[in-house]
Amino acid sequence: MDRRRVIVEGIRPMLDGGRFPIKRVVGDVVAVEADVYGDGHDEVSARLRWRHEKQRNWREAPMVSLGNDRWRASFAVDALGTYRYVVEGWVDHFKTWRHDLKKRIGAEQAGASDLRSGAGGVNEAADRARGRDAEALRAWATRLRHEDVPQAERCEDALSDDLDALMARWPDLEHATAYDVELQVAVDPVRARCSAWYELFPRSWATTPGAHGTFRELVARLPYIEAMGFDTIYLPPIHPIGESRRKGRNNAVEAGPDDVGSPWGIGGSEGGHKEVHPRLGTVADFRALVQEAGTRGIDVAIDIAFQVSPDHPYVREHPEWFRMRPDGTVQYAENPPKKYQDIYPFDFESADWRGLWRELESVFLFWIEQGVRTFRVDNPHTKPFPFWEWCIGRIKARYPDVIFLSEAFTRPRRMYRLAKLGFSQSYTYFAWRNDKAELEKYLLELTRSEVAEFFRPSFWPNTPDILNEYLQTGGRAAFMARVVLAATLCSNYGIYGPAFELLEHVPREPGSEEYLHSEKYEIREWDFDHPDSLSAFIGRLNRIRRENPALHENRTLRFHFIDNRQLIAYSKASGIDDPRSLNPYGDELVPPAPVPPAGEPANNVILTVVNIDPAYTQSGWVEVPLEKLGLRPDQPFAVEDLLTGAKYTWRGAWNYVELNPRVSPAHVFRIARETDDEAAS
Amino acid sequence: MDRRRVIVEGIRPMLDGGRFPIKRVVGDVVAVEADVYGDGHDEVSARLRWRHEKQRNWREAPMVSLGNDRWRASFAVDALGTYRYVVEGWVDHFKTWRHDLKKRIGAEQAGASDLRSGAGGVNEAADRARGRDAEALRAWATRLRHEDVPQAERCEDALSDDLDALMARWPDLEHATAYDVELQVAVDPVRARCSAWYELFPRSWATTPGAHGTFRELVARLPYIEAMGFDTIYLPPIHPIGESRRKGRNNAVEAGPDDVGSPWGIGGSEGGHKEVHPRLGTVADFRALVQEAGTRGIDVAIDIAFQVSPDHPYVREHPEWFRMRPDGTVQYAENPPKKYQDIYPFDFESADWRGLWRELESVFLFWIEQGVRTFRVDNPHTKPFPFWEWCIGRIKARYPDVIFLSEAFTRPRRMYRLAKLGFSQSYTYFAWRNDKAELEKYLLELTRSEVAEFFRPSFWPNTPDILNEYLQTGGRAAFMARVVLAATLCSNYGIYGPAFELLEHVPREPGSEEYLHSEKYEIREWDFDHPDSLSAFIGRLNRIRRENPALHENRTLRFHFIDNRQLIAYSKASGIDDPRSLNPYGDELVPPAPVPPAGEPANNVILTVVNIDPAYTQSGWVEVPLEKLGLRPDQPFAVEDLLTGAKYTWRGAWNYVELNPRVSPAHVFRIARETDDEAAS
Repeated sequence: MDRRRVIVEGIRPMLDGGRFPIKRVVGDVVAVEADVYGDGHDEVSARLRWRHEKQRNWREAPMVSLGNDRWRASFAVDALGTYRYVVEGWVDHFKTWRHDLKKRIGAEQAGASDLRSGAGGVNEAADRARGRDAEALRAWATRLRHEDVPQAERCEDALSDDLDALMARWPDLEHATAYDVELQVAVDPVRARCSAWYELFPRSWATTPGAHGTFRELVARLPYIEAMGFDTIYLPPIHPIGESRRKGRNNAVEAGPDDVGSPWGIGGSEGGHKEVHPRLGTVADFRALVQEAGTRGIDVAIDIAFQVSPDHPYVREHPEWFRMRPDGTVQYAENPPKKYQDIYPFDFESADWRGLWRELESVFLFWIEQGVRTFRVDNPHTKPFPFWEWCIGRIKARYPDVIFLSEAFTRPRRMYRLAKLGFSQSYTYFAWRNDKAELEKYLLELTRSEVAEFFRPSFWPNTPDILNEYLQTGGRAAFMARVVLAATLCSNYGIYGPAFELLEHVPREPGSEEYLHSEKYEIREWDFDHPDSLSAFIGRLNRIRRENPALHENRTLRFHFIDNRQLIAYSKASGIDDPRSLNPYGDELVPPAPVPPAGEPANNVILTVVNIDPAYTQSGWVEVPLEKLGLRPDQPFAVEDLLTGAKYTWRGAWNYVELNPRVSPAHVFRIARETDDEAAS
Repeated sequence: MDRRRVIVEGIRPMLDGGRFPIKRVVGDVVAVEADVYGDGHDEVSARLRWRHEKQRNWREAPMVSLGNDRWRASFAVDALGTYRYVVEGWVDHFKTWRHDLKKRIGAEQAGASDLRSGAGGVNEAADRARGRDAEALRAWATRLRHEDVPQAERCEDALSDDLDALMARWPDLEHATAYDVELQVAVDPVRARCSAWYELFPRSWATTPGAHGTFRELVARLPYIEAMGFDTIYLPPIHPIGESRRKGRNNAVEAGPDDVGSPWGIGGSEGGHKEVHPRLGTVADFRALVQEAGTRGIDVAIDIAFQVSPDHPYVREHPEWFRMRPDGTVQYAENPPKKYQDIYPFDFESADWRGLWRELESVFLFWIEQGVRTFRVDNPHTKPFPFWEWCIGRIKARYPDVIFLSEAFTRPRRMYRLAKLGFSQSYTYFAWRNDKAELEKYLLELTRSEVAEFFRPSFWPNTPDILNEYLQTGGRAAFMARVVLAATLCSNYGIYGPAFELLEHVPREPGSEEYLHSEKYEIREWDFDHPDSLSAFIGRLNRIRRENPALHENRTLRFHFIDNRQLIAYSKASGIDDPRSLNPYGDELVPPAPVPPAGEPANNVILTVVNIDPAYTQSGWVEVPLEKLGLRPDQPFAVEDLLTGAKYTWRGAWNYVELNPRVSPAHVFRIARETDDEAAS
């Protein structure tokens, strides 16, 4: 039994009833909506309370009624870590009284009895209040009751905004209802939301042709990567590589004597997950690379793959962490009939699972101590979900700036679960979404559903494991189209280079997505200065991304109609403060995509059009939703293709585009809107 | 830290994370779906467990994989009260082993070591098993390991269905995951889902013209109601009526000396909520009415309105249950500037709120003891929500066959909350949904969203408070159209009679929905035998409802295209056992509306077409989705208008209908499909 009369429910954002935090980055605003209502005709009030986990005091803001029992307020998250938020509602007798008094005055029914009853409520608030507010409230109560003051005057007093504001500061919360669960926001660094990754195998980056590259040589090549504008370089496992059962070039079952092996065959006589491959250099060399990259504004991300080669020290020191076959040998990885005898998975059902979990956590901590703040995690869906929640939770409690990218190419529910459990970014199906309808459908799922609250997509046109058919057959235009799509559709993206910018496109065999002469198994020599290289194009693209805040997030993504299914058109806009736009759901109260507040132009609008047909010129009429982008229907407007510098003057909602893939398969337009000043002049 | 590797989430049906029960009626099947998955490549298994709250033992059924990590199973609820259900998942090592063995056999890789490892798993199951199963498993393990038996033969054994079934009976549940919350199903009597109500003021049903009617006289008139086919008669409050501030005819502020007052002004010198108005008879007379109606298969529902007249004994005996005005008088009901000085609301913020709650509960219990099993509750949204959850919960724990109809004409969230808290049926916005688009939209919300899990709509074309404009102006055809819509769209419906069947349509004043000479304030004399009466028509309609199970529920409702917006067409079908149809959501795995299993005709299909234009004949072509209704596209089929007996032969998907409102504004077709026997002959 409980006589609290107000119901608080239907809170958004909220994941699985509060089981998981929503995600934001530093500087974001969290707009919270809730259903708050009571029985009968009494008015209710609601407030939003929040605090950073490490602060003791709650802050609060009144919620505003949106009608139909829906309320909204918002708060900014300006520190890394976890915030908590709570919605509270209560029956507001003063608000009810004030509302009724207005109607009574209108009907000429207001009387001394009404004023006395209001004064009673004001006096009760005075009892709750402190300091000057208490005095002021007491004075108000006296005045409302003061029979020498004409009644009409006292009624006017009763409705004053001053009294209303004063009363709102001292509500009667004795029977207030709070939502059952304290909800959470995980606040990450901004680069969790916006980043451009470049994956490379350092052993192929030697300055001496044919040699095994080193971290020192990679430092020398940083300007190449910096010129392309990437902010994160990501290295496959940098550890010693096992020799037993090592795979040869093109994944041959037997390695030749000179074969370098796969970096994912982790662990040898030189050590395991906390050691650097001796031919790459030393841990100190690695630290120097991290530092040097840092001075150029580049993070170094490393790959953490929790599996071992048969030569890994763990196999000897912790046999209890592996499953044994009936013949007493360690169980290698298998996906019958395929056998991966060079790889031993951990047995997470081990009796010493606690010891295993702690050791794996210590791997992250070791590299964090070497300066790493970004981890790409290999196949996290093949390790238990509870392990990730525990491990990432502990690490982020100490190092809230650490970023984890989930490399889980698996079924949707598993990918989403990993994101909910703590991964900051996630690989996606982008590589297999190549036509317009597929792309639009997938992007709507990622940006306009609850998924947007916890899953930060990262779009990769290629990886060392994925050379899709479109790139195999589409030529240079296909590479350009795919990198433009990745970089403009998704605020996190990456490429695996130099294979990408050098248009590497031959598969190991027909129908395969594996590269021929894959760097996974051999050292490659790259012709960084090849005339066909896309490095300058990618540099331009990354500069556009940096300079245009519209491309720094996905929530404003909107597709536009274009009458050619080989052309895909979409825009992003920044500087939109309408809180409605912060809620990504298709709720009736929320427009399908953000609209700038009336009269306030969006600050930065990028309209991208891509020809996804790499073979032929395609043209069409694209619809520009003028009003939604803050454009005046009666005024021409300038668009500039930031890829080429070409400028056009457009007029009206429908505009013609034509894209020849041999020249450029994409426009990345900035829409320049007249400012009010310009319009006036 | 927890090493359980399987995730169970996304359960449907589930309301607010399990906070509220879903609703079913006795005999229903509950189809449960869940996401169940683990990490890595191991197979998982899942099961559904359930029990009636009063049974100790859980029953269980294996869940079937639907692909994409989604699983399903179902259970029947055959007793009143509350059931609990739980989904469990676990890593199934035997299933994984069996699956891998198949692939190994295919690749000619299966070896003695594989058989030994499988035998180990079978032996472990034998340790868990009891009795014969344990022996049988032990024998299987021995055989799998038996080196004298040829390996190929043992492999075949290992894949036998018998072993599989045996292993499935003894799973290793040590690390099984159960969903956090035990979910609940509230199981009501079938009449909670399907009922036809008739509201009447017994004081107007005297057999002596002009007299105050009595319960005894109402007994004499039961055959009239029985002939119309209603299964529930509902009486406005039957208690003594207050004299102080009593309202007169047409809601006049002052009552005349002969005015009988509003039944909702409850309580006088003769008693309050546990007493019968002396002019209606005695409590014994009321019990006799309940019994007599019962022998005719008719329930008597009474109205419980928790408010009092100034003369109610509570005012004297429990002044603490009322709010006082500053002048020391009891606060009457108000909605400024309107004052209802004849009505005192309870103060649920009373210090003695516990005493008040208990007294109100005792009102229900009193009438339950007099034989009442169905309550219409007046304005429940003006009493605290927690009160209803407590009160209905306690009553249903003792009397699970009791039905509560919520008379909350208020905002959607409050209506839905009351339903979640325990009300069995709810009034709706039907009276204000008069055009085709409005009706379709509202019905989709009620039948194809989560709302269908907890909110059982009741459609009323009129009530003593609602005479809508359509009925005021549309004439007899309007009444016919509205009652057909109510009775066929919604398995629960009701009318307020005889005002309805006698076409009462004059409002108190223009723009008002109040009746002129409303029975709320005066005794009316009704001409039950008026030649225009719709009583025979309604009788036919209720017989159609009784005889056609398709009309006994709403989940199969499907609207059909018809090329005239004055015509609305829809069907319901019964006998559909495809479990997909039991899930009302627009999930990708669930078709938008149920489809009979291939080759199996639906048992009963009712296609209704209503002309909502009461003035003119309308015609159009209605689309009949032949396949979905189990019809053969190449065969003609017979349709019979159950309202008129007219029969037609239709052929193909598009068929012509024409409805003259002066004759009949509706067809209620039964679609007779050829049986296989007929087709063969």
